[in-house]
Amino acid sequence: MKITQKIAKADAEDRCFWSFEYFPPKTEAGVVNLYDRMERMYTLGPEFIDVTWNAGGSSSDVTMQVCTTAQAVYGLETCMHLTCTNMPREKIDIALNDAKAAGIQNILALRGDPPRGEANWTKCETGFSYAADLVKYIREQYGDYFCIGVAGYPEGHTENPDKEQDMKHLKDKCDAGADYIVTQLFYDVDIFLNWHAECRKIGITLPILPGLMPIQNYGGFKRMTSMCSTYVPQHIYDALEPIKEDDKAVKDYGVQLAIDMCNKMKATGINGFHFYTLNLERSTRLILEGLKFIAPIEQVRPLPWNPSLAKNREKENVRPIFWRNRMKSYIMRTESWDEFPNGRWGDSRSPAYGEIDGYGVSLKHSAEECLELWNHPENESQIADLFIKYCQNELSVLPWCDSQMSGESDAIRSRLAQINARGFLTINSQPAVDGAPSSDPLYGWGPKNGYVYQKAYLEFFVSPAALAKLEARIEASHPFITYYAVDKHGREMRTNNKTSSPTGGAQQQLQAPTAVTWGVFPGQEIVQPTIVDPVSFQSWKDEAFELWNKWAALYAEGSKSRRALQGICDSWYLCNVVSNNYKDEHAIFDIFGEAEDAVAAGAVASR
Amino acid sequence: MKITQKIAKADAEDRCFWSFEYFPPKTEAGVVNLYDRMERMYTLGPEFIDVTWNAGGSSSDVTMQVCTTAQAVYGLETCMHLTCTNMPREKIDIALNDAKAAGIQNILALRGDPPRGEANWTKCETGFSYAADLVKYIREQYGDYFCIGVAGYPEGHTENPDKEQDMKHLKDKCDAGADYIVTQLFYDVDIFLNWHAECRKIGITLPILPGLMPIQNYGGFKRMTSMCSTYVPQHIYDALEPIKEDDKAVKDYGVQLAIDMCNKMKATGINGFHFYTLNLERSTRLILEGLKFIAPIEQVRPLPWNPSLAKNREKENVRPIFWRNRMKSYIMRTESWDEFPNGRWGDSRSPAYGEIDGYGVSLKHSAEECLELWNHPENESQIADLFIKYCQNELSVLPWCDSQMSGESDAIRSRLAQINARGFLTINSQPAVDGAPSSDPLYGWGPKNGYVYQKAYLEFFVSPAALAKLEARIEASHPFITYYAVDKHGREMRTNNKTSSPTGGAQQQLQAPTAVTWGVFPGQEIVQPTIVDPVSFQSWKDEAFELWNKWAALYAEGSKSRRALQGICDSWYLCNVVSNNYKDEHAIFDIFGEAEDAVAAGAVASR
Repeated sequence: MKITQKIAKADAEDRCFWSFEYFPPKTEAGVVNLYDRMERMYTLGPEFIDVTWNAGGSSSDVTMQVCTTAQAVYGLETCMHLTCTNMPREKIDIALNDAKAAGIQNILALRGDPPRGEANWTKCETGFSYAADLVKYIREQYGDYFCIGVAGYPEGHTENPDKEQDMKHLKDKCDAGADYIVTQLFYDVDIFLNWHAECRKIGITLPILPGLMPIQNYGGFKRMTSMCSTYVPQHIYDALEPIKEDDKAVKDYGVQLAIDMCNKMKATGINGFHFYTLNLERSTRLILEGLKFIAPIEQVRPLPWNPSLAKNREKENVRPIFWRNRMKSYIMRTESWDEFPNGRWGDSRSPAYGEIDGYGVSLKHSAEECLELWNHPENESQIADLFIKYCQNELSVLPWCDSQMSGESDAIRSRLAQINARGFLTINSQPAVDGAPSSDPLYGWGPKNGYVYQKAYLEFFVSPAALAKLEARIEASHPFITYYAVDKHGREMRTNNKTSSPTGGAQQQLQAPTAVTWGVFPGQEIVQPTIVDPVSFQSWKDEAFELWNKWAALYAEGSKSRRALQGICDSWYLCNVVSNNYKDEHAIFDIFGEAEDAVAAGAVASR
Repeated sequence: MKITQKIAKADAEDRCFWSFEYFPPKTEAGVVNLYDRMERMYTLGPEFIDVTWNAGGSSSDVTMQVCTTAQAVYGLETCMHLTCTNMPREKIDIALNDAKAAGIQNILALRGDPPRGEANWTKCETGFSYAADLVKYIREQYGDYFCIGVAGYPEGHTENPDKEQDMKHLKDKCDAGADYIVTQLFYDVDIFLNWHAECRKIGITLPILPGLMPIQNYGGFKRMTSMCSTYVPQHIYDALEPIKEDDKAVKDYGVQLAIDMCNKMKATGINGFHFYTLNLERSTRLILEGLKFIAPIEQVRPLPWNPSLAKNREKENVRPIFWRNRMKSYIMRTESWDEFPNGRWGDSRSPAYGEIDGYGVSLKHSAEECLELWNHPENESQIADLFIKYCQNELSVLPWCDSQMSGESDAIRSRLAQINARGFLTINSQPAVDGAPSSDPLYGWGPKNGYVYQKAYLEFFVSPAALAKLEARIEASHPFITYYAVDKHGREMRTNNKTSSPTGGAQQQLQAPTAVTWGVFPGQEIVQPTIVDPVSFQSWKDEAFELWNKWAALYAEGSKSRRALQGICDSWYLCNVVSNNYKDEHAIFDIFGEAEDAVAAGAVASR
């Protein structure tokens, strides 16, 4: 969606909005960490994010990669920066085409800094000299497809001391077809407000977003303001001087300063704010809290997972639960799908998930890091200990779980540890929810005045012997439980889910999905965005078992660790269990055998 | 579905099953009454029904009409009888083609009685002489499409005293391609059991269903047994003799006799029973009760409405609520649809409902009956009185409601009467249900171990002034209410349902349906079979207003009644209201104004 559409919506709803700017990290690990950060900061509700362009450097490729991932995987409306520096027309065309293909609709068109090692800006052959030319070119080539932002300089451009001429440049960019303006950072609100008034006076009517860079440390602040020739009011220096050696105090001051600046602008009717985050999280979070800028849950979580904003995915409103902890892998494996299921998975299911070979299953950490995390488990019991530690938050990652267990699993954390101790190695779970308000901070999603539901879900690896006993217990006394289990080879799907559907036969039902998360909202159909689907389970299975192989491969051939891990991979089952009685949140834990039953009985007594 | 498939399923589930036989009534009113009866008897859970063929008479057309309607409208798996009598091959072809087009898959192939007025059976030109020939012909022409039943005569055929030859005829019919056997009526179970054993001995392996005709009155019983030369054991005559003048006593005896006969057969392993109902309901119902033959609710009510068994409707699992009281009209208006929505109405919505002119909107009763029912209301208040009486069960039909208010509306009957007294003329409603078990006798439907939900729904005609007030009240203080209102001309759809959907825009939402009945079942997606859909509401509106015209047309031009009814038709709105907070069953009644509020307050106090 275009940023201007989002601004118009915020204006219509008479509310403030905000956006975050990131830069492409230099290392692959830095990129991975930025993704985690972006995903967390999604919940702060930015209307969009910006990713800067590093002209000529290899990080312009990283810019494209980060933009594409933010848009497709994390569902962040992304604005890609594009500069004229070192960019011949062919490269500009490639960048714009790639952006369009990724579903990105917003470009911030900049002239950019002079090429590295040169003092003055020089145009590259077949390239552009001015941002206005770039704006014009994008408009000519792409018509209305892109929403184009341009930079505004409240204190004038560093290279251009003539403010009047600077204002004329801005007007040129607007006239060339820009849609909105983001300003360079500033620390004097009055300068911004005067300049803002000046813009309006000469007929610039586009939305103008002030850019704020929270002060993170004294040295960085000095360098940045000097480089950009930013005017810093004396009271800021006075406040920083006594605390300049105390990073925490500087950060806290920076937060309060930004809050004060925003409040002053807000009082004059400014309602949108752009934050230069420097890829940092804490200050931005604290500023938004201080401003009481809280994104309504229906806007932050329209669905229980972040909807992808990639091209052709607008209608995607259902996903299998299996990839919940590996969202990026799911997006990549499904990116070539022609269309996404429109609510019922069954009939419009795409023919195939991408092959796992296509993108490579990886542990997401270096071998050294992995060994440090998981050490050298030499048997099933030691392996189970790692899973238990993960449940107890003493281990931050497992091959199947990129990050720590989600907050909503807190309620069942100790039960999960017990199950793992009994040899059921859990890799995914969700608790039962019987009609929580859609505004619930933990479980809520979707439009207001609705109710959301979850069936309890568990997914784990299990030995053939333990699976046989589990199946017998379910068959004997758990009519509300359905399960699917499959080994590495996928020769046989073991399941008890053969109930016939209202209109289809038993065979059809075998292939039909189970909704495990759904919501009931005013004036809508029931939304059922998360399912357990036997067909996609077969695809997920390949990936889940391959991660055992990758883990085993960390250890020397013939070593005890390798044999133990490979043994599980080769003979155990991957099993998913749904407790269909979502009105009993403990029922799913009652299927794991006698000792578990005893524990459950205690839990019942203490309920 | 084929009867043999249903028999196999019952066998696999080790349960008894039963079927009902009807004959085509002579009058149009009789047909209408039979439909009502069939619909009620649907809940008794017959595995299938038979409709007899009246060879040569015009009632063979009625047979086809009743079969088609039972299959398509009432969702009863129907077996059409077909006889050789007076049936040249062309007529047989027409009958079979029509049956196939209607989705009927079961034919009982009979030779039939001699043509009317003739003592002996004669073959008609280009027709068949024996049922076996008819069976063979159907097999040749239609391959495996039809499941073919044939008649068995435990006491031998009346025209054929040679039992051995009779058994050979049966074997011929089986060898010609029959799939199952239904017997002629009998009253001596031993005769049936011996004959049954004989059939097995000579190699007849097909399912055999004993046919039972409950004794309804003494005269009829005598005539029938004499006509069919049925052997009647002396103890039956002995029992009937003293009570033969007492119809009720005879019927009760007939019920008990049938129960005893069935139990005796059951004890030998017979598990399927065919009842000659003579289009009567009570005896069959009492016999099933006596046998404790109760159809599981998941079988009787796979969905909250009876799924149609017409061709191409297998996947139909969602319907607009508007036609709930005019199911036949809905089936007829949608019968030319290529495909039925597969769960989400929006994307696969068929382009158009049939025009109402195509089949004619009718009051379903003669003008005389209508006048007797509704008298001569001369103003809006007197018209409202009729609606109130309907709510109070003092009036059995309204133009929009074919039959008395359904049991599930009992809970809100008096509230409805109050609303009508305030000028909101209600024609459809359902109460809120917050997760009743799917086995609930009143609200339950669908597979076992599930939960069903309903949003409270009301549909009514309302004057423009009252609608404006209602809209203001909803806007001011009822965020959980959504409504649509439209007048006869449909120039403008008035609604407050403009909430944006998770993935679509507000405009898309305007056209999106609201689920008002849904169910959550083990191992399945959420099933949402009943919706409020603004698109189909436009089609329903035409029909709903046309019924005012039909009603008005009962009265002389210029009469007060005609003017009053026509006035409502021409200027009032049709409005539907959904209370999206299904956790508050009374909320929907709080929108009807001050006096209503006062009443509600009283109700709250007494809750």
